[in-house]
Amino acid sequence: MRDSFQDDLDQVGNQLVDMSNLAASAMSRATAALLDGDIQQAESVIAGDAEIDRIAQDIEDHAFNLLALQQPVATDLRIVVTALHMSMDLERMGDLAAHIAKVARLRYPAKAVPDPIRPLFAEMARIAEDIVAKAGTTIAAHDADRARELEVDDDAMDAKHRELFRELLSDRWSHGVESAVDVTLLGRYYERFADHAVAVARRVIYLVTGEYDRLANRSPRHDLPATTPGE
Amino acid sequence: MRDSFQDDLDQVGNQLVDMSNLAASAMSRATAALLDGDIQQAESVIAGDAEIDRIAQDIEDHAFNLLALQQPVATDLRIVVTALHMSMDLERMGDLAAHIAKVARLRYPAKAVPDPIRPLFAEMARIAEDIVAKAGTTIAAHDADRARELEVDDDAMDAKHRELFRELLSDRWSHGVESAVDVTLLGRYYERFADHAVAVARRVIYLVTGEYDRLANRSPRHDLPATTPGE
Repeated sequence: MRDSFQDDLDQVGNQLVDMSNLAASAMSRATAALLDGDIQQAESVIAGDAEIDRIAQDIEDHAFNLLALQQPVATDLRIVVTALHMSMDLERMGDLAAHIAKVARLRYPAKAVPDPIRPLFAEMARIAEDIVAKAGTTIAAHDADRARELEVDDDAMDAKHRELFRELLSDRWSHGVESAVDVTLLGRYYERFADHAVAVARRVIYLVTGEYDRLANRSPRHDLPATTPGE
Repeated sequence: MRDSFQDDLDQVGNQLVDMSNLAASAMSRATAALLDGDIQQAESVIAGDAEIDRIAQDIEDHAFNLLALQQPVATDLRIVVTALHMSMDLERMGDLAAHIAKVARLRYPAKAVPDPIRPLFAEMARIAEDIVAKAGTTIAAHDADRARELEVDDDAMDAKHRELFRELLSDRWSHGVESAVDVTLLGRYYERFADHAVAVARRVIYLVTGEYDRLANRSPRHDLPATTPGE
């Protein structure tokens, strides 16, 4: 028979999955706002961030009550504290999607991303949406094997981020400094979004295996090339 | 008579102050590496980040044991969980100082920051060092009033960050795209460093008053001007 503590943990887990879904939707709509110059989408992402923040606050309050009232130990304690950390990562992912939407809004009716590198941003967005969707399923399924797949997606994001810097720094760049500044920040937002999704996945691995690769969580596993200041 | 739990909390508090001091030193040396093109300083900051990470891991392990073995409630529980969060902010501040050092190393023997905006970076660095020093003293003294001062410093950092974007986007900018990319990322690193210091201060206020302004912690209290994509 299930006790109320288990029900509470399930509720927190469901809220984390909800946050993942909201972050995925925010990133998808922020990219549409950015690439299509869609101001309504941009505004909806910026306004919608408050809902992700609200759930994060609710999880923090809930986790706090669980710690204070149920005094969990061992695995249960690890689950509650890890949920707190996951919530902070997912909340930050919502912020980053909102940052992307704000750049789109700032440049509207113009577009912040020059046409030649639109496909590159579309690809970074696809990876970002894929990685946050996988993060959500790893949370729901406590699937450490699936969680490890996110490292591969993150490598793909890092590769695209390097490609972006090569474009910025190549003689082909003819879009001026303002556009370079926008693209530099946008690239960083997508890359950080993926980093936080990987952090969530690593916390799932930690829950399942008890092993948390903190160092891997710190910085990319390989340096960016010598022309790339992104890390 | 003091109990061992209080001694444990004091030890965690001392470790957080140590992290603040290390983050302050890292930022100071990273700026010297950046502005003076000092490769040894850059390497020492990059290598030294591991020590900040080690303390963060130690605090997490320690906090975990306190939660599991002492089962604190009320204020004691709040202190332990808040210490975990502060440690994550301070660890990230060390990462950001290392990012600045990596840009300095990447451009060595050249300098990443064009001479005309060196004073602007020197000023952002002064604010960053001041703000992290204040964060450390607020942790040590549990001083909510001092903690609130950091908001003012953060406003000063935001103002300098806006000034940096105005320089980047002005007709005066004659330093090319690569330099604009470097300066854009560097500005972001300094600004995020200050944001995390403010988050630490807000957690101190939360500990002292029980009131945590989560929304204020989310994003700047004022938008950057319309020419500024930095937020």
